[in-house]
Amino acid sequence: MKVLVTGFEPFNHEKINPSWEAVKLLPDTIAGAEIIKLEIPVVAYKSIQAVHDKMVETQPDIIISTGLADGRVNVTPERVAINVTDARIPDNEGNQPIDVPIFEDGETAYFSNLPVKKMVQAMRDAGYPAVLSNTAGTYICNHTMYGILYYIQKEFPNARGGFIHVPLAPSMTVDKPPIASMAITDIAGALEAGIKAAVQNLEDDKLAGGTEN
Amino acid sequence: MKVLVTGFEPFNHEKINPSWEAVKLLPDTIAGAEIIKLEIPVVAYKSIQAVHDKMVETQPDIIISTGLADGRVNVTPERVAINVTDARIPDNEGNQPIDVPIFEDGETAYFSNLPVKKMVQAMRDAGYPAVLSNTAGTYICNHTMYGILYYIQKEFPNARGGFIHVPLAPSMTVDKPPIASMAITDIAGALEAGIKAAVQNLEDDKLAGGTEN
Amino acid sequence: MKVLVTGFEPFNHEKINPSWEAVKLLPDTIAGAEIIKLEIPVVAYKSIQAVHDKMVETQPDIIISTGLADGRVNVTPERVAINVTDARIPDNEGNQPIDVPIFEDGETAYFSNLPVKKMVQAMRDAGYPAVLSNTAGTYICNHTMYGILYYIQKEFPNARGGFIHVPLAPSMTVDKPPIASMAITDIAGALEAGIKAAVQNLEDDKLAGGTEN
Amino acid sequence: MKVLVTGFEPFNHEKINPSWEAVKLLPDTIAGAEIIKLEIPVVAYKSIQAVHDKMVETQPDIIISTGLADGRVNVTPERVAINVTDARIPDNEGNQPIDVPIFEDGETAYFSNLPVKKMVQAMRDAGYPAVLSNTAGTYICNHTMYGILYYIQKEFPNARGGFIHVPLAPSMTVDKPPIASMAITDIAGALEAGIKAAVQNLEDDKLAGGTEN
Repeated sequence: MKVLVTGFEPFNHEKINPSWEAVKLLPDTIAGAEIIKLEIPVVAYKSIQAVHDKMVETQPDIIISTGLADGRVNVTPERVAINVTDARIPDNEGNQPIDVPIFEDGETAYFSNLPVKKMVQAMRDAGYPAVLSNTAGTYICNHTMYGILYYIQKEFPNARGGFIHVPLAPSMTVDKPPIASMAITDIAGALEAGIKAAVQNLEDDKLAGGTEN
Repeated sequence: MKVLVTGFEPFNHEKINPSWEAVKLLPDTIAGAEIIKLEIPVVAYKSIQAVHDKMVETQPDIIISTGLADGRVNVTPERVAINVTDARIPDNEGNQPIDVPIFEDGETAYFSNLPVKKMVQAMRDAGYPAVLSNTAGTYICNHTMYGILYYIQKEFPNARGGFIHVPLAPSMTVDKPPIASMAITDIAGALEAGIKAAVQNLEDDKLAGGTEN
Repeated sequence: MKVLVTGFEPFNHEKINPSWEAVKLLPDTIAGAEIIKLEIPVVAYKSIQAVHDKMVETQPDIIISTGLADGRVNVTPERVAINVTDARIPDNEGNQPIDVPIFEDGETAYFSNLPVKKMVQAMRDAGYPAVLSNTAGTYICNHTMYGILYYIQKEFPNARGGFIHVPLAPSMTVDKPPIASMAITDIAGALEAGIKAAVQNLEDDKLAGGTEN
Repeated sequence: MKVLVTGFEPFNHEKINPSWEAVKLLPDTIAGAEIIKLEIPVVAYKSIQAVHDKMVETQPDIIISTGLADGRVNVTPERVAINVTDARIPDNEGNQPIDVPIFEDGETAYFSNLPVKKMVQAMRDAGYPAVLSNTAGTYICNHTMYGILYYIQKEFPNARGGFIHVPLAPSMTVDKPPIASMAITDIAGALEAGIKAAVQNLEDDKLAGGTEN
């Protein structure tokens, strides 16, 4: 089995992006699956294109994109991606689309077809705080997750894919008003546990994980 | 023009639900539109059925459901409803569906077709803190919003609909660890401003309002 | 009995200060006590001087200063004032003392001699969220509270005094990232309930209200 | 130079206390100073007694107690300890004092005489999020900090002392609603940087670090 795992380049004046820093720390195989690592740009459509190119090239069984979620306290696999880009800040090439569909011929949303509940549980079992998220936002993270699931539906019907948001790294919070962070090694540990659960489970369980809002 | 506005009955051991308390305070007409008020149960499908029955009966031009979002600091129109119910706590009849689609023949998600950006702006212009939300959760609020948009697509193609989450009322937070609230009269004021914007604007503007996560 | 209640003028680029807005709404008598209202400047020492002048002039039995606590979700009587000013931002005359004792001959700290636990309870009983705070910060609020308790000890041994922090007003949060607020009328209601408890109780009760940090 | 560093035993149904876990990871010498490590009980007065006994035995130049601050996002040296114990939960021997002075003949409060601003800056320079705190709460942490500073004033006039609060460890947050944490190795790194600053600086600088509330 092959797992393509992506992290983002830095954006918004930061020097690092903990998603890529953590992905770099992943082992080359997890539960027997080959881990293919890819850094992608924080640029509308170019992020999707970079993943799509690698999907065509490597034909992965699983595609997991990871990105930064400023302010979150734990590692958060995403349930759903929605067909809109609404950028609060420009991307790394200065684009700032507001309320623009990602793909005109795509569905309104795609649910991740990874076992997200089991992935959350596996992260927790490994000692890392994790929770399922019901929104990936409206910026390049949601954009990229949507693109992956769109291409899975259109071109890679046997592949599975999803997205995992990760907290700020501690060093990124030093000069900010108090805001949560997580050690990059812990983020990597959580990602490894989650990827292992995705590799080993085709079906999800109906585990607790909902929220009122 | 007719606007059907719903609020929920109390749930989760609370004595009031600020959504219905605020809806009760709304005037009978807003910007010339008749306001039809309806209290609905916090019960899976019965909430949708109650709104649907009233839609059939009154043929409203706009349907806005409102509900409680514990912990939010401002009034939050919702952008999207997703086709899943994942209940962390039982509903008022003891049902606790986990990861169940709401309607098998519905889309993965529906975007609200109300001018949500203009509604947020109108609430702010009226002096009330408001922000667009990208998740209505996975409980009865999202469930009901999804049901309204599903029936709009299936049966009421000329209607517009959406959902607005509101904070806890101050009295509900007295015995809780510190958590944000908003006066019911202010919630009602924000709802009125938002409804007025929905009545007066068929199209939305591409106003700022996105988020990275 | 006479109660001197102060609120602050606006600062930090805001147009209003909810402490003074709420104090203005207080009735002229509470539980039979005369309420004397005073707006004071957000200026080091001048704030204390303004209160001291009014104390000399009116000889109040109780002095309660109120001020804004950006981000707090409820009304918070303060337990203690400490003998230091450490200003993160300049005051309204451009002073920015850092780590300077307020009065060289003062104690390291003064506890409020108001029945703060009963005041919190009375606010809650009246339906307003309230909690005891263990830090008034290091800016003009703590500065003024310290000054009041210093002069009570030095010159007004029969007087009682303290400080109550209040949340942002809703209108102040409209253009900020999501942050909690409270209606000014609710702040005034909580202040009235707290002042009533202070007027009617010379001794406090050992009610729950501590915190681990 | 000798530095006595304490951490607490677990309390409140937790299996570990990150303060002691981090202290255990400290090197045996920091900036040439000998590090003496001590685990102390979460029990009123017994915590103080344990530190006092070790102070008598080892005659340290610096005493730094560390403890858990549930919910804080960074490492927080404390500015001041106040003369009251107000326990929200019982200590590890079932005591729950409410509004009781710690030492009847002590001052209302003691400021730490460590260079707390420089310690915060040193932690940040080392890459760890840190901020000065103005309240150590009213439980055993404040209690112990107060006791240390009391005994410094009474019996060890040449010693310097203070307290550092640390976040939850990640593993402690797995089964809680989302709440911030910090890796124990990072906590240890921040403590080491802070202790080094305390060893190398007798005087503090007037660095920014105040707060309005």
